Amino acid sequence: MTRTGRMTVASTPEELREARRPCPSPFGLVPTMGALHAGHAALVRRARAECASVGASLFVNPTQFGPAEDLSKYPRTLGRDLELLEACGADVVYTPRAEEVYPDGFQTFVTVERLSVPLEGASRPDHFRGVATVVAKLFLAFAPDRAYFGQKDAQQVAVVRRMVRDLGFPLRVVVVPTVRERDGLALSSRNAYLSPAERASAPVLFRALSSAREAFDRGERSGGRLRTAMRSVLAREPLAEPLYVSVADPETLEELGEAAGDLLLSLAVRVGPTRLIDNFLLERGRWETGILEG
Amino acid sequence: MTRTGRMTVASTPEELREARRPCPSPFGLVPTMGALHAGHAALVRRARAECASVGASLFVNPTQFGPAEDLSKYPRTLGRDLELLEACGADVVYTPRAEEVYPDGFQTFVTVERLSVPLEGASRPDHFRGVATVVAKLFLAFAPDRAYFGQKDAQQVAVVRRMVRDLGFPLRVVVVPTVRERDGLALSSRNAYLSPAERASAPVLFRALSSAREAFDRGERSGGRLRTAMRSVLAREPLAEPLYVSVADPETLEELGEAAGDLLLSLAVRVGPTRLIDNFLLERGRWETGILEG
Repeated sequence: MTRTGRMTVASTPEELREARRPCPSPFGLVPTMGALHAGHAALVRRARAECASVGASLFVNPTQFGPAEDLSKYPRTLGRDLELLEACGADVVYTPRAEEVYPDGFQTFVTVERLSVPLEGASRPDHFRGVATVVAKLFLAFAPDRAYFGQKDAQQVAVVRRMVRDLGFPLRVVVVPTVRERDGLALSSRNAYLSPAERASAPVLFRALSSAREAFDRGERSGGRLRTAMRSVLAREPLAEPLYVSVADPETLEELGEAAGDLLLSLAVRVGPTRLIDNFLLERGRWETGILEG
Repeated sequence: MTRTGRMTVASTPEELREARRPCPSPFGLVPTMGALHAGHAALVRRARAECASVGASLFVNPTQFGPAEDLSKYPRTLGRDLELLEACGADVVYTPRAEEVYPDGFQTFVTVERLSVPLEGASRPDHFRGVATVVAKLFLAFAPDRAYFGQKDAQQVAVVRRMVRDLGFPLRVVVVPTVRERDGLALSSRNAYLSPAERASAPVLFRALSSAREAFDRGERSGGRLRTAMRSVLAREPLAEPLYVSVADPETLEELGEAAGDLLLSLAVRVGPTRLIDNFLLERGRWETGILEG
């Protein structure tokens, strides 16, 4: 266990228990995979504003990466991450090693069945099993009163919310709007992989979502035509390979034929070798499209 | 919420939270499916002896029954169960309805993968997924410091222990020896299904286990020959149809060729239409064969 200014860094479950014990309630948790950016900072600052104590985890979770995915080359920037967390006011940071989280003989998994199947789940079959399992473990380890997640990962939000409700974790899930670059690109640790040309193409996700939102705002309610609006914007960008476009119920993730109540527009696009995702949420009649950084 | 003497009976998660809040630590939990007998009473009394507060649940968990199993005819004896729990000193009893535990849209399950496959799992493929899920939910609802399980369900013990370790539930699993009739038959709610002739045959499980134990005590270390010892006792009982006999590691449930360290002898036998299970545990050089009621 080490201290960075007023922040405690725990690297084993025992150290975390010791660091957590004196923290006053309510306790807010921000689970992350590190490689922190302004999107994570928004989560920590929101937790800081709402809670008496704030914890964060930095753990690149192997069980949510597929065999062909980028686990080993996922960006790791521990020193900078700790500085950002301290600057945002975190009290406790947990940085476990993989062998600590998944010891020999580990074989218990949490699955949120139907919500894990479509969208991201279609090409990443065990991804949300890994997410639900590690989030359940972090909830048990931190015992938070609130847990903060970014709207950027909309399916993860749906999965975690369902898990909390189904298993009865005694906490509230708080979802924080996506933070974007000035050109609309959603902040993501994976943006670091983009070449300058790919970076120039990447705002096409935001433009595609915006085009469907504009169609909706003009009165378009057909799920099919909203998807077509997104697809035709993507088709004009040569470096972008669309993987899916979706108009779905934000809670069940079922594709909608007719847009009636709440609405999740989402898409995944390969830009060069890098897979990017983004979404807009229409909830209670209000668009949540994220915050453009200035 | 109702009171039976000094015991509180909660039937919703909200009532349980309210009833649990004032209970002093350590809190001991005894999860049951009702139809209580002296085996359950031993669990509650052990919890009472070790804990400042004692909770129990009475819930016939649908997700641990297969489609062809006896969910609807599983014995239900709520009035007598509450009397027994009060007599044994329980403070809080939770009797939720199935719709409360598994509301519309429920889809989150906890699986303990390899331990759920052999023995009981071979003929009951989703049984331990149901057990692990409901036990996880009860652990989150009660937040116990200790949880009490009977050695009778040895595979359930292995599954729950593994789940607690893998997910990091902050509690201790306490395993209580099997309580037996004077002729060795392990107490089970399913014994109520036995006809007089079947009841007379049922102690063959205990005799088969005893015969393997005696062989072991005489120096037999071959897993194969210990299994044969059990099988040959079972073969002499016309009403008994052996389903499996096992000599396994009690923690991993892997079948042993040579008995070296700890040892779990276990078997499942159909006696008439009723499926019975039993086991002996050799741990730290000491046999745990259960308590004969007298």
